[in-house]
Amino acid sequence: METTLTPTERTRLKRLPQRGSYDVATIHAILDAALICHVAFNVDGQPFAMPMAFGRVGNQLYVHAASVGRMPRAGADGLDMCITVTHVDGLVLARSAFHHSMNYRCAIVIGRARLVSDPIEKEAALRAVVDHVVPGRWDEVRQPSAQELKATAVFALALEEASAKVRTGGPIDDADDYTRPVWAGVVPVTTTFGQPEDDGRLVAGVAPFEVSRLQ
Amino acid sequence: METTLTPTERTRLKRLPQRGSYDVATIHAILDAALICHVAFNVDGQPFAMPMAFGRVGNQLYVHAASVGRMPRAGADGLDMCITVTHVDGLVLARSAFHHSMNYRCAIVIGRARLVSDPIEKEAALRAVVDHVVPGRWDEVRQPSAQELKATAVFALALEEASAKVRTGGPIDDADDYTRPVWAGVVPVTTTFGQPEDDGRLVAGVAPFEVSRLQ
Repeated sequence: METTLTPTERTRLKRLPQRGSYDVATIHAILDAALICHVAFNVDGQPFAMPMAFGRVGNQLYVHAASVGRMPRAGADGLDMCITVTHVDGLVLARSAFHHSMNYRCAIVIGRARLVSDPIEKEAALRAVVDHVVPGRWDEVRQPSAQELKATAVFALALEEASAKVRTGGPIDDADDYTRPVWAGVVPVTTTFGQPEDDGRLVAGVAPFEVSRLQ
Repeated sequence: METTLTPTERTRLKRLPQRGSYDVATIHAILDAALICHVAFNVDGQPFAMPMAFGRVGNQLYVHAASVGRMPRAGADGLDMCITVTHVDGLVLARSAFHHSMNYRCAIVIGRARLVSDPIEKEAALRAVVDHVVPGRWDEVRQPSAQELKATAVFALALEEASAKVRTGGPIDDADDYTRPVWAGVVPVTTTFGQPEDDGRLVAGVAPFEVSRLQ
C-alpha cells in the first residue's frame, strides 16, 4: 500500500495547507480513533451529511445503512460519497474574534462508493464495523442471520483520494493584540467513556464489560 | 416561530421514525449543545462533508469559511447545503451484531444557503459563532477588522426543513438471544473539558478562564 497519497485537485488543501497531510498512517490513525463518521451523499441533488458507524479493512472504508433508509442505492456506477471523521481536541481562545479556532484532527475521504454484494466481503465489512468500536466484539455475539444481512446495505469507499488536517497548539494572535487584558489559551476537549450500565437481563455469571477494551 | 416543523419528503424519517422529531425546541437544543457541525455541499458534483464551527440566531444557522477555501461561492441562487450535528451519548452493546447501536442526538437541517452580504447580519453571525462556544466571548476580544471580515465568507441556512433523531436506552435484543452469556448494556460517552492551558503570554492580572462558562 502507498504510504503517502497523491493529492488531487479535489483533496489538495487550499486553506492553511501546512496543517494538512496525505500520509496514509496519519489518515488511518484519525479514522481508527473515531466512534462515528459523517457521510455526505446526494439524494436528488440535495447533499446530506449523515452520522454513521464505520469500519476499515486495509484501504477500504465500510459504512452500513438500513436497506429501507434514505441512502440511495448505488447502481453499477456507484455513489459519490465523502466520509469525514473529526475529533475536536481543544477550544482555542484567542485575543481577537478572528483568531479563535479549535484544535482538531480531521480525515476526509472522497470517491465513488460501491454497494458490497459479495457475501464474504459483506460479512467482513460488518465485522469491521462492530469491531471498530469494540475490538473482538463480533466473535462474542450472535452473528447476522440471512434476513439481517438482507436488511443491511453496505457501501465500500476506497481510501485513495483523501487528506488529513490537524491543528494543535495555542492561539496565534496578531502582534498588536498581545497587550489585551483577556485570557487566551486552549481548553482541552476529550471524549470519555463512563461506567458501563448493564441492561438488567444478563445471564448469571457474565463478566462485566471492561472499558479498557475501547480504543 | 413555529414550534413544530412540517416534515417534507426530504426530511421525513424513513428509518425508525419513532426516534424522530420535528419539534423546534428539540432541534435547537441539539444544535446549541454542539461544538461543531458537519456541513455537506457539492463541489463540481462531488459531495463533501466538512467540519465547521457554527452559530444560531433565531431560525438562522450560520457557518463561516475562509473566502479562499474550498467552499463554493453561493451565487444569487444560493448553495444547497446540509448542516448536521451529532452527539454520541453511548455505545449500545447488544447480544447480536445486528442490534448493536449507539445512543445519540442528531439534528439535520437542509436547504439552500445564502451568502451573507449585509455587514450588520455578517457581524451578528460571527458573534453568534464565537458566542456559541463561549457565551460572552465576543465582547471580551478584539472584533474583526474590515480585512478580517473580507477574508471570511458567512453562509446562512434557514432552519425550516429539519429533523431531529434521538436514541436513548439499552439494547433491544431478539427474544431468543437473551440466553446468550455475553455482556450487554450501554457504555456512556461524554465530552469533557479539561483544565484550561493559558498560552504563556497573558497580561499580568488577567483572570483565569472558567470552564463553567462553557455549555
